[in-house]
Amino acid sequence: MLETITVAVDGMGGDGAPFSVIGGIDLVCKSRPDVHFLVFGDEAKLRPLLASHPGAKAACDIRHTDEIVANDDKPTAALRSRKNSSMRLAIDSVAAGESSTIVSAGNTGALMAMATIVLKMLPGINRPAIVTSFPTENNDCVMLDLGANIECDEVNLVQFAVMGEVFARNELNLTQPSVGLLNVGSEGLKGNDSVKKAAAILESSNLPVKFYGFVEGDDIGKGTVDVIVTDGFTGNIALKTAEGTAKMFTHFLKNSLTSTLTAKLGALVARPALERFRDHFDPRRYNGAMLVGLNGVCIKSHGGTDAIGFAHALEVGINLVRRNFNELIKEDLGCLISNKLEAQTAAK
Amino acid sequence: MLETITVAVDGMGGDGAPFSVIGGIDLVCKSRPDVHFLVFGDEAKLRPLLASHPGAKAACDIRHTDEIVANDDKPTAALRSRKNSSMRLAIDSVAAGESSTIVSAGNTGALMAMATIVLKMLPGINRPAIVTSFPTENNDCVMLDLGANIECDEVNLVQFAVMGEVFARNELNLTQPSVGLLNVGSEGLKGNDSVKKAAAILESSNLPVKFYGFVEGDDIGKGTVDVIVTDGFTGNIALKTAEGTAKMFTHFLKNSLTSTLTAKLGALVARPALERFRDHFDPRRYNGAMLVGLNGVCIKSHGGTDAIGFAHALEVGINLVRRNFNELIKEDLGCLISNKLEAQTAAK
Repeated sequence: MLETITVAVDGMGGDGAPFSVIGGIDLVCKSRPDVHFLVFGDEAKLRPLLASHPGAKAACDIRHTDEIVANDDKPTAALRSRKNSSMRLAIDSVAAGESSTIVSAGNTGALMAMATIVLKMLPGINRPAIVTSFPTENNDCVMLDLGANIECDEVNLVQFAVMGEVFARNELNLTQPSVGLLNVGSEGLKGNDSVKKAAAILESSNLPVKFYGFVEGDDIGKGTVDVIVTDGFTGNIALKTAEGTAKMFTHFLKNSLTSTLTAKLGALVARPALERFRDHFDPRRYNGAMLVGLNGVCIKSHGGTDAIGFAHALEVGINLVRRNFNELIKEDLGCLISNKLEAQTAAK
Repeated sequence: MLETITVAVDGMGGDGAPFSVIGGIDLVCKSRPDVHFLVFGDEAKLRPLLASHPGAKAACDIRHTDEIVANDDKPTAALRSRKNSSMRLAIDSVAAGESSTIVSAGNTGALMAMATIVLKMLPGINRPAIVTSFPTENNDCVMLDLGANIECDEVNLVQFAVMGEVFARNELNLTQPSVGLLNVGSEGLKGNDSVKKAAAILESSNLPVKFYGFVEGDDIGKGTVDVIVTDGFTGNIALKTAEGTAKMFTHFLKNSLTSTLTAKLGALVARPALERFRDHFDPRRYNGAMLVGLNGVCIKSHGGTDAIGFAHALEVGINLVRRNFNELIKEDLGCLISNKLEAQTAAK
């Protein structure tokens, strides 16, 4: 029997909250008798939902607060004036050692700011990054940073490489994931200063990273490497471009398959195959991004997801805790420190 | 009857050259009796191809050279030592006023370097950009820069906005295309310095641009705007990410529709619809990127395309010449100059 772990949940974050949150817990608790959920939020809204979800009710405790972080709250304003919000109290619960992970579908900027201030950085890491997994032609892969840091120097990128590698070992069950740096060409001469210098460090140092070299935008879909490292500006745009392209494809495929009677008939016959195809790309299967680099496991769910998507985000957090993600990352960060990458940064 | 125009063609550039080049000319000349092609390259290889393409033969003159730009030539080396290459001589032909446009499927870096040195920049423009059109859920759109400039300041981005707008009017037949700046969020506070400053200039100035504001990666597929402006690092990665995602989708769709006997049967019934779907995304339909900002119309074809794709690149060049693209862009550049954006740059 596994030791029980406690998950702090922002009950009020996300477009579908608290319905999607309680629904997600209800799905997860069925196969996770060893997980306890502390749900922060408005008791008057949460209680009736738990009444209709008896499984979740048995696995949950509610911590009442009626303060919430709004979607349009600026991160600095949220930090200052949302100290009793469901999001903040859930993060505080991890900092206090009461919970092992926090999951929120709320305002990304506010979550980032609060989690960074409250949980603090892991030693050897300058900035947190956002990391998630997604499908490729090959196996799933992970990419970071997806938007936490608009500009990144080579030291940030190398730290992301180390953290992404540990994340891929955990989340994708790989023993030695390959790591690529996103660039505009595969030759060493291409790219901006940061990626060129980061590549030089990753090639020459004895970091515990299997460095593949540069990869290009089309390598994301190909699945050329297991971990894609980039700055938050490029990573955010690449991820959203991929999502937009996937939606465009689905849109045109649907249009084509409903355009004529014979097309509709064909689609009906091929329906099970088309459903498998659709399910493979279901964004809910990939919901749950980690704010990596913090002294605590903080998971951001997509704000627009439903109970199935929120359940997946909860699973991401639970799995990372079960596999001692933070301990593994600290081991590898020891190598960063002995490689003096921390010292380089401190000198900046 | 239209006045005859002359197109300079790099007969030896691209993986399929010279076969795809002559094949492309053969396709175009059927509907373009008013276009004459000057093909630069190895006569011994070109002549036999023309013998089997009588249409192309009637529309072509060959200018012999046996020097070529190799795919792995560095731009600086190509500039120095490939002065009699098929690519260089074709560009020279535009500079000499003998041809109205140059089309090449060869080495992008070399083409960029040679065209910039030989044709020179349009007055008011600091750097050329690569621009092309592609499909969205909505109408086709154009994006620039796709890789010519790794780092861009706000003046570069504003110049790209003006040039992209003129390109969209020509290539997409729009009267007033909307222009968006690619960013990691739609709020004014997000993004790096260059995009924030460029947005401020585009909002406040009286440039002839219908500025939409910031767009995100998923707006590319949605077709939120007609013109997407970004730096060459981000643009290159976004375009290739979209291409990679499209390939991944096609791969899984094909797998699904051949996975079982009923799936195959359904696909067979829906075949005409699936073929229309495939044709809509055929990359050959979108082949032909322009090196915009030069004092001449220079078109880069994808290196791996076939005759159909090369024909499309030729059409892009011919259409831009027919519509006096360079004159239109000069008019709008007058506004840039009167807005002192040129002066700002000169002071840098």
